Amino acid sequence: MTGIPGFWAVIPAGGSGTRLWPISRRSSPKFLHDLTGSGQSLLRATWDRLEPLVDDRILVVTGVAHEEAVRRQLPMLGYDAVIGEPSPRDSMPAIGLAAAVLERRDPEAVLGSFAADHVITEPDNFQRAVAEAVVLARRGELVTIGIEPTEPATGFGYIRLGAPLDVVGAPSAHRVDDFVEKPDLETATRYLESGEYRWNAGMFVVGATTLLELLAENHAEMVDHLRTIAADPRRMRDLWPSLQKIAIDHAVAEPAAAAGRVAVVPAALGWDDVGDFNSLTKLVAESSELPGITAIGPADDIISIDSTATVSAGGRLVALIGIDDIVVIDTQDALLITRPDRAQEVKKVVETLVARGRTELL
Amino acid sequence: MTGIPGFWAVIPAGGSGTRLWPISRRSSPKFLHDLTGSGQSLLRATWDRLEPLVDDRILVVTGVAHEEAVRRQLPMLGYDAVIGEPSPRDSMPAIGLAAAVLERRDPEAVLGSFAADHVITEPDNFQRAVAEAVVLARRGELVTIGIEPTEPATGFGYIRLGAPLDVVGAPSAHRVDDFVEKPDLETATRYLESGEYRWNAGMFVVGATTLLELLAENHAEMVDHLRTIAADPRRMRDLWPSLQKIAIDHAVAEPAAAAGRVAVVPAALGWDDVGDFNSLTKLVAESSELPGITAIGPADDIISIDSTATVSAGGRLVALIGIDDIVVIDTQDALLITRPDRAQEVKKVVETLVARGRTELL
Repeated sequence: MTGIPGFWAVIPAGGSGTRLWPISRRSSPKFLHDLTGSGQSLLRATWDRLEPLVDDRILVVTGVAHEEAVRRQLPMLGYDAVIGEPSPRDSMPAIGLAAAVLERRDPEAVLGSFAADHVITEPDNFQRAVAEAVVLARRGELVTIGIEPTEPATGFGYIRLGAPLDVVGAPSAHRVDDFVEKPDLETATRYLESGEYRWNAGMFVVGATTLLELLAENHAEMVDHLRTIAADPRRMRDLWPSLQKIAIDHAVAEPAAAAGRVAVVPAALGWDDVGDFNSLTKLVAESSELPGITAIGPADDIISIDSTATVSAGGRLVALIGIDDIVVIDTQDALLITRPDRAQEVKKVVETLVARGRTELL
Repeated sequence: MTGIPGFWAVIPAGGSGTRLWPISRRSSPKFLHDLTGSGQSLLRATWDRLEPLVDDRILVVTGVAHEEAVRRQLPMLGYDAVIGEPSPRDSMPAIGLAAAVLERRDPEAVLGSFAADHVITEPDNFQRAVAEAVVLARRGELVTIGIEPTEPATGFGYIRLGAPLDVVGAPSAHRVDDFVEKPDLETATRYLESGEYRWNAGMFVVGATTLLELLAENHAEMVDHLRTIAADPRRMRDLWPSLQKIAIDHAVAEPAAAAGRVAVVPAALGWDDVGDFNSLTKLVAESSELPGITAIGPADDIISIDSTATVSAGGRLVALIGIDDIVVIDTQDALLITRPDRAQEVKKVVETLVARGRTELL
């Protein structure tokens, strides 16, 4: 497979991943880690998945603090392929700036935005879906990839499918009726049973200029600023901090969907956002040598006597005796012990550290 | 209180404390640690308890590898107050050598042998019991302190009380009918209810020469060797390795009891041998700042969200979320997680480390 001409991948590599503390840190966030033991960091795996679609047409948007680490993990990136954000301003400014940069390079550019820290186990389905989405994007659509749900998840937003679209080259496409917020379990179960809903993973495929035009409808000044920065990167310093912190979903996708202007390509991706240690535990296979133990990273330093656990042994020996169903994340300076069903609360630990002024551990 | 004239304390500071791994290590065994958060190591607390009884008449018998650490914790010890064992040969050679050394210093010497790694919360009762025991020892008895049991413990041997003795200065004393091995729970419960049994903590008070004479009845050669070493410490090297590895209970106390020659002073000592993390958990008070958390050492580095646990945070932050009733022992190079009711199995981890050749962690 060679790349899709004129199609650019944009990888927003941001977010602090506080629910994956203490592996994910401000200084070394989630996307830089090989959380699943694949041998690749999430960022590098994202590159590998996209490279067949875009060849070298990739832009990574990341915090200036992470530029060096990103370039170390992706040494094939050219100088122009990394945009450093002076401060985090959520996904709209990040993707919007990438769009402004790309429309200067290629006025016909179509971009696909894919987070740096998600897992996809069906890359062929992903690539097929993106190819359909690009066809739709060339017709002026804002396109999202709608992920086939495999369980009644309450941690994701959903996309309600509208009527099928009849577009050559995009046989799976539907109109998007609505983006809906994270549901409760009962609602999620209904969504799953109805077959009319897909998970929203924030994957958007859209013409660079189309995106900026949609954004300008409600955020004209932001678009002006983004184009000014793209034309003269020295303006980053003064203009970037003034940009509104807003997600692309709220800034563009939801209003456009309400106006019937968003398409969706449904796909079964084996997708996971690796949102916390519970989801990570499900992604990693049980150790063949240590029954009951799911090792994040090497298992050599784990001794398990009659225990079941997910263990990340950060260089220290970890010995478990008679322990059931816990998560042990050991790092050089911090140790977390919790249960899969409490994994969402890890961010409370991070909040406590902030409150105690233990910034060195964040 | 001034010391009891002619009474010497002998502190065997040995044992590897493998059930308290990874705090207790070969290189730094249990007695060198402040396990209970008292502010003192178990060894130092043992000294403090004995000092009022003996002034400076104390002999510590320890492995040569630990001599320096013992002297660092007990800087008041004179040069002659530490005997270094070239290799561990159980309690009889250790206490026997101390007796042989002491009878040369003072032919009338009475010694009391008290382990370096036990906890006693009622030091006044202890001192009263020892004073009675010394009176009996001066009459030629082998005397043991019989600890009033507070629960049907299955981890200790018991002493069966015989007839009361009618000795001025030792009003509590009884004859010992028998030393009995660690019982099962049913037997232990019967012992407790009968009121006729006391715990055997291996505390013996006896004339130095009396002890050697009792030992000579079954182990004449050992006594010869011990007296030879006491007269010429250069003989330690060739004679020590030939001494039989045997506990004082088997070598002397049990045969003497069978012959009706052992006395016991019962006492309520608040005693614990700190045998594993379960017994340690019971000895340490719950943290006032962290409900549900029993901290071994400082609690500053512990974050607990809705958890109950015994935690030793060895310099690293330890965060717990939704965890019940576990023991977390974190050290520089090894982490143990278990449950109080599995604490006895910690030695299996040590055995696994031996089998894997991870001697640096022992």
